[in-house]
Amino acid sequence: MVFQDKFQLRIPGPTPIPPSVQQAMSRPMIGHRSKECSAIIRQCSEDLGHIFGTNQTSLILSSSGTSALEAAVINVLSPGDEALVVTTGVFGERFAKIVDRYQMTCHRLEVEWGKACDPEQLIQALRQHPTVKAVFFTYCETSTGVLNPIHTLAQTVHEHSDALVIVDGVSCIGAVPCQMDDWGIDILVTGSQKAFMLPPGLAMVAVSEQAWKRIANNPSPRFYLDLLSYREKMEQETTPFTPAVSLLFGLQEVLHLLAEEGMEAVIRRHQLLKEMTRAGIRALGLELMTSDEDASPTVTSILGGGDEWSSEALRKELSAIGVIVAGGQQHLKGKIFRIGHMGYCDPLDICTILSSLEVSLHKIGRPVSLGQGVQAAQEVWIHA
Amino acid sequence: MVFQDKFQLRIPGPTPIPPSVQQAMSRPMIGHRSKECSAIIRQCSEDLGHIFGTNQTSLILSSSGTSALEAAVINVLSPGDEALVVTTGVFGERFAKIVDRYQMTCHRLEVEWGKACDPEQLIQALRQHPTVKAVFFTYCETSTGVLNPIHTLAQTVHEHSDALVIVDGVSCIGAVPCQMDDWGIDILVTGSQKAFMLPPGLAMVAVSEQAWKRIANNPSPRFYLDLLSYREKMEQETTPFTPAVSLLFGLQEVLHLLAEEGMEAVIRRHQLLKEMTRAGIRALGLELMTSDEDASPTVTSILGGGDEWSSEALRKELSAIGVIVAGGQQHLKGKIFRIGHMGYCDPLDICTILSSLEVSLHKIGRPVSLGQGVQAAQEVWIHA
Repeated sequence: MVFQDKFQLRIPGPTPIPPSVQQAMSRPMIGHRSKECSAIIRQCSEDLGHIFGTNQTSLILSSSGTSALEAAVINVLSPGDEALVVTTGVFGERFAKIVDRYQMTCHRLEVEWGKACDPEQLIQALRQHPTVKAVFFTYCETSTGVLNPIHTLAQTVHEHSDALVIVDGVSCIGAVPCQMDDWGIDILVTGSQKAFMLPPGLAMVAVSEQAWKRIANNPSPRFYLDLLSYREKMEQETTPFTPAVSLLFGLQEVLHLLAEEGMEAVIRRHQLLKEMTRAGIRALGLELMTSDEDASPTVTSILGGGDEWSSEALRKELSAIGVIVAGGQQHLKGKIFRIGHMGYCDPLDICTILSSLEVSLHKIGRPVSLGQGVQAAQEVWIHA
Repeated sequence: MVFQDKFQLRIPGPTPIPPSVQQAMSRPMIGHRSKECSAIIRQCSEDLGHIFGTNQTSLILSSSGTSALEAAVINVLSPGDEALVVTTGVFGERFAKIVDRYQMTCHRLEVEWGKACDPEQLIQALRQHPTVKAVFFTYCETSTGVLNPIHTLAQTVHEHSDALVIVDGVSCIGAVPCQMDDWGIDILVTGSQKAFMLPPGLAMVAVSEQAWKRIANNPSPRFYLDLLSYREKMEQETTPFTPAVSLLFGLQEVLHLLAEEGMEAVIRRHQLLKEMTRAGIRALGLELMTSDEDASPTVTSILGGGDEWSSEALRKELSAIGVIVAGGQQHLKGKIFRIGHMGYCDPLDICTILSSLEVSLHKIGRPVSLGQGVQAAQEVWIHA
């Protein structure tokens, strides 16, 4: 079928793979202990440091993002330790689940889904739980499209507590500002299949001096997710266990592409994609789930029509014309849909998505002025 | 450089990727919760069952083989539980390290490196440690090229104990016989980058009814490596965490290729590759590390020349003409070299390797009758 592989993958990860990255991943396999592989690992680690904004060594795990969330938890905490987990959606909840599972004491600061964490809420929670050893945040909460103000939140933690600041940056690092060292992030975790434009299968982690001290003194058992072994092996430009070599080939090319565009330009591009998407959605009379201020540059959540129309019916029409967007998760299932616009995505792609949305709204019988969403996005674009 | 990517990767994993598998992995990215991805996961799981020889559900983890060794340990055992680990080399030792790390009581049955475990040794060890809850084996010990007689060993365990039989099949499953259910294997673990002809990054696991009972009652914490969550999600044709989608594309194609050739033919092919390699090595006057009986069909270990010549010098010459073989690990470093002949490897590849070996032996100044190793291998081939 001619058009079988012609579709726009606009979910908030996995995201489309650029051709040169695809090509890099198709290089002939090499030994993972070869000099060539070591050179790639070293280069990737160095380049990741620039994106993370850290002088610490960036580590690469061959597994998906959740494994690195778990690594953060079990490397810094022991059973019985207290943790504060700020939950703004599904992925904040995942941190809390891991903390619970390992019999640590989990205090949840539950923020209403669709809103970012307010520093005042955080101060209250820190006062209520003065002995927490770590505070867990989600930088971009993929399930709602919220970007938490990590810079401010990290500073707030350090002003009011001795706790470590652990940040899940899976669905935004590589698309948004990040100054890990300056902001006081103690562990930063991200994954390959979002703004890094790779297939899933790699997780990237960096750890502050302060957190390394805690980790070195933490006797809790861990093996595949023991960050100390990754640090030790990275000094020898390798990994403790066989890495996902083809994804490393791709990561090297991705980091080259990001450096070529320049991180400031990459960040500006994602900001523009966000603004174009939001302008287009508004022009179509649809309701955004998050405020402009709280919204992430990587994913936009849009409310379904309640009793009037279903976001699932809309997604089905979109899919029929080759545009894949995400639905809502858990209690948001059927109530919202989400457009991913990170990584290999440019302003014209937003026009394409909005165009498909207009046609699909029409198909499910919604009143829609064709072209109006596209026009609003174009206005943002040409004035950027 | 024209010949930069023209090399023969003949280490015991990662192994070369067949072109159609490479192509499958280059398909456009899809959502991991899509129907299409579910269909791939279901198909892969079913096909893996045939190769494992099990009616149990085969599970797919996105991480390297070691993570699945760890999963086997931490899912069936709790701290304080006794385990018997049969170590025949580096990877048996890895099992023992994991057991130690999690504060289980690890009894080691240390078999001389280069030899397979003798059932009589095993019976003695089981008598000495009658309360072990699990016995850990390495089917193919990659570091020495030994294939342990897993069928006999598993039966021996069940005759003399109630312990579960856990098998690391990373460097041989997909190339050697395996009847998990009939042989009484309780957990079988393998990886993508060996006989499965894929890049590293996937681990495949199957679990017996008996082991599932133990796992369900094991309160020890685990999250990314919690096999129960993989079983639960596999019932819904998905995975608990984002899987390495591009590797799943590849796995589907690999399983198709293996089914097309037929597992009996695949197993015969690897047996032939082993016999050709050994005949060639002997004809060149080199010494094999393992007996014919103990040797694996997937990897052959050859002794270096002691004081007379160095296997590292030989490897360097081989590499210069585009043939990559592995050295020895740990105390075998510099003392042996290892030829991987599994997965995407046919009889002609063995002639190529032997040919390169003859030229390289000549280059390091060893007396060698050019063509003699190749000839011996050809004799085996034409009479097969």
